[in-house]
Amino acid sequence: MQTVAELAQPAARKIVLLVLDGLGGLPREPGGPTELEAARTPCLDDLARTGSLGLHHPVAPGITPGSGPGHLSLFGYDPLRYVTGRGVLEALGIRFDLRETDIAARGNLCWVDQRGRLTDRRAGRIASSAAVPLTERLNQIDLPGVTCLVRHVSEHRFVLVIRSEGSGAGRLETDVRGTDPGHEGVPPRDPEPKTEGARRAAELFGTWVNRAAQSLAGEAGANMVLLRGISGRPRWPLFSDVFGMKARAVAAYPMYRGVARLVGMEAVEAPDRADALLHGLKDALPENDFVFLHYKAPDKAGEDGDFDRKVATIEAIDPVAGDIAGVLGDGVLLVTGDHSTPAVMRGHSWHPVPFLLHGGGLPGERRAGGFGEAACARGIHGTVRGWDLMRLAAARAGGLKKYGA
Amino acid sequence: MQTVAELAQPAARKIVLLVLDGLGGLPREPGGPTELEAARTPCLDDLARTGSLGLHHPVAPGITPGSGPGHLSLFGYDPLRYVTGRGVLEALGIRFDLRETDIAARGNLCWVDQRGRLTDRRAGRIASSAAVPLTERLNQIDLPGVTCLVRHVSEHRFVLVIRSEGSGAGRLETDVRGTDPGHEGVPPRDPEPKTEGARRAAELFGTWVNRAAQSLAGEAGANMVLLRGISGRPRWPLFSDVFGMKARAVAAYPMYRGVARLVGMEAVEAPDRADALLHGLKDALPENDFVFLHYKAPDKAGEDGDFDRKVATIEAIDPVAGDIAGVLGDGVLLVTGDHSTPAVMRGHSWHPVPFLLHGGGLPGERRAGGFGEAACARGIHGTVRGWDLMRLAAARAGGLKKYGA
Repeated sequence: MQTVAELAQPAARKIVLLVLDGLGGLPREPGGPTELEAARTPCLDDLARTGSLGLHHPVAPGITPGSGPGHLSLFGYDPLRYVTGRGVLEALGIRFDLRETDIAARGNLCWVDQRGRLTDRRAGRIASSAAVPLTERLNQIDLPGVTCLVRHVSEHRFVLVIRSEGSGAGRLETDVRGTDPGHEGVPPRDPEPKTEGARRAAELFGTWVNRAAQSLAGEAGANMVLLRGISGRPRWPLFSDVFGMKARAVAAYPMYRGVARLVGMEAVEAPDRADALLHGLKDALPENDFVFLHYKAPDKAGEDGDFDRKVATIEAIDPVAGDIAGVLGDGVLLVTGDHSTPAVMRGHSWHPVPFLLHGGGLPGERRAGGFGEAACARGIHGTVRGWDLMRLAAARAGGLKKYGA
Repeated sequence: MQTVAELAQPAARKIVLLVLDGLGGLPREPGGPTELEAARTPCLDDLARTGSLGLHHPVAPGITPGSGPGHLSLFGYDPLRYVTGRGVLEALGIRFDLRETDIAARGNLCWVDQRGRLTDRRAGRIASSAAVPLTERLNQIDLPGVTCLVRHVSEHRFVLVIRSEGSGAGRLETDVRGTDPGHEGVPPRDPEPKTEGARRAAELFGTWVNRAAQSLAGEAGANMVLLRGISGRPRWPLFSDVFGMKARAVAAYPMYRGVARLVGMEAVEAPDRADALLHGLKDALPENDFVFLHYKAPDKAGEDGDFDRKVATIEAIDPVAGDIAGVLGDGVLLVTGDHSTPAVMRGHSWHPVPFLLHGGGLPGERRAGGFGEAACARGIHGTVRGWDLMRLAAARAGGLKKYGA
């Protein structure tokens, strides 16, 4: 990324990244079309014929990406190198809208005996229905100067976020050791600071744990908590610094806004409809060089194993993609997915994801039959890694200088 | 590999890696078919139509792989990162069946004067015919508690292996400096231990060199030896630890069993016939999660420059590949080569190697015409590195969790 940052120059054209979540698919029957190939997509097919195609591996061949790593990759970050703490990941995983100064911890409900020693680190894997009233009570805990937010994840698992936004305290140092000793028969540890600067955060977590213990005293379901993976937003190179582009994310779901904020993008909410993205784009374009538009529907249909509905979601976005290209003019449009979600697999998969690059004043690079996995496998870009795509888009927009003399 | 080890989970299905050695080829005449494309392979073509295709670079584009790096790559190890000592490589290069506790050194026959100073470090590049009787005499040297094995390589080059297997001494530390000073006019060095633990191995090599000097005293062809690259089996992550799979290799030639043992696989010998592999597989399957089957014939024909015979060897394995898929059921079959050996080049080459993945309960990914270089270049997997293939196979077998939330 250092090299990219050194080569970045003001781009002549704007870039739109349109993510069709879970786009990549598989045939329903041997030799048949994938979801994308089965969909009637005259606009995307036209963009394919006048653009260029390829496939990308969001993480690495054979690795099934989560949504966090999948999007980081599309933003130009190698997700095996840019790894976040567990607290942040859990928060993103439940689609919590994590902000700049938030500190997140993964929590466990647990049991201790009357001398404070752990007897079950997972509270007997308490049922979610029994855990939710307890985490809702934990969510009532107030600490002075910060906001404490607790969200249930599943069974004994929850996320605690300490938010100091607007407190005037600035960003807290997060280098705090978790409280889970890793085995039973001993008391939970104190949340100790690993650096002098993290003392304030450690005190906040320590106070919160004491209040949590009071709140759960005498409960049958769980009477204590453990905290792990205390982490803030990672200190990565910012997207705007790497690519020299002011960037906005437009997404209906908090998780995708959260990942965009991880790399410093502004993020705004949009209704969860295909046409809402065009409005979000028109709002964003005057003030931004890069706009990320997130469309969730294909992934949901894929996860549900509904091939036909996934086809329908792709057909629904098709005219919007055409409109976006129209609004962009000779700007650059990148259409792809953050991972594959084949309906036949009912979940994310490791299969490479088709992508389409259009615009930048370049002619179509080959006579592609349309936008689909088979056409992309024959595409001029070949098979690349997901974090190559931002470089390809920036180059096409005129945003990267020559490397070397 | 650390990431893979963290994502590995018990796979629902077994994996067979069928290596057709030297599979990749080139057309005999411009525009004609390659060996694989010319071969009548109804079973492989059917597997291609119901599976998925791609090409792989065993090491890197433009690098011609030896058999050692080529197989390491197929086992999931980047061969530019997992590099063995020269002694081990030479031993593998002459297809020596290297065992767990063996220590190997590359040896030179050389000349010293009556005061022990080197006068020719390569014994005048002695002819192999003159060198073989000398290395056979060196092979007679016995040391207490270990077995000493000498094998001629070419001209002045030989391999010395000190085998302590069964001696009760366990694995010897191998951090011993070689005896070659790198220039003439000085005596050979002593084989000094670089660590305290390597003292025993250094003493063994020192004693062996003294016995070698006695054995060669007065010879006209060479009267001394030099030892370089003293090395044992490298301490790499074991295949079983990385992928969480119990693995067996079935191969007629010792070198391939040796490479498999380098990563901790069990290795058994099979007759050098296509049909023998099916029996080896049936023996291996009940107790193993992963079986590597090695088929040597295409490489030999390619090295001989015999296009038609290479075609015939591929046609001979075709029904066996079909039988293997039948035995596997919905298990995963990976068919590929460790490198290309185009008959028109009479040797290994740098050309990417076709691969075919089948099974795992997934439908065929595209309408491939069959198994061949051109079809694989359009394959859904694109062009990947050789060590990506194990990840792809493991993913298909259900053996890798999702990366990130």
